[in-house]
Amino acid sequence: MSLNPQYEDIGKGFVQQYYALFDDPANRASVVNFYSATESFMTFEGHQIQGAPKILEKIQSLSFQKITRVITAVDSQPTFDGGVLINVLGRLQCDDDPPHAFSQVFMLKANANSFFVAHDIFRLNIHNTA
Amino acid sequence: MSLNPQYEDIGKGFVQQYYALFDDPANRASVVNFYSATESFMTFEGHQIQGAPKILEKIQSLSFQKITRVITAVDSQPTFDGGVLINVLGRLQCDDDPPHAFSQVFMLKANANSFFVAHDIFRLNIHNTA
Repeated sequence: MSLNPQYEDIGKGFVQQYYALFDDPANRASVVNFYSATESFMTFEGHQIQGAPKILEKIQSLSFQKITRVITAVDSQPTFDGGVLINVLGRLQCDDDPPHAFSQVFMLKANANSFFVAHDIFRLNIHNTA
Repeated sequence: MSLNPQYEDIGKGFVQQYYALFDDPANRASVVNFYSATESFMTFEGHQIQGAPKILEKIQSLSFQKITRVITAVDSQPTFDGGVLINVLGRLQCDDDPPHAFSQVFMLKANANSFFVAHDIFRLNIHNTA
């Protein structure tokens, strides 16, 4: 396995595909298919969980319905094991709440002819005061 | 190689050590020692470079002197090859400029008894409008 020269397209394509599902309440739960049953880590607002079943629980516990999202930056890097590290920055609005800045890091790991999300770190309100 | 149970302390310790050097103009250039000569990637405000020599050039091209920094979140996850993925959020102020929010992702890779920065993605002004 080595650097994937398509890392930029893979990063942008994944981000588009992931949020198209996540932001639609009817399809949100299906993002669980991007995660491994045992090897995926998610840190959601500082709370860490591992494995697709717990990640699905977390996603299903989110109370908002509609998400309106604006992506301001997607930075991708290839990893030497054929994966892609992605940093996403933007703003999102849940239902009628005010918009908030967000940051989400994804590490895609190569798996046969596909990728899974090995790491996912999400934070909202990133410019809150300390 | 497997998950390092100390990932939380490694992440926090690294972030403290890295910024103590980076934020001090007399020591800033020494952060280059955290990077590999050939295998490290840095994406600085969307511009991607590879390897310690180019990373040093970039660091030395920065025109500000003093940095005042407030860290608001450090989220770390262990990787299955013994490394640590870190997402840092906060605010920084260069010299007398107004403070800006920033986001920085580090991927530390294990190397004998130490770690090096395999991936570094930095963005300033993360809540700018699109």
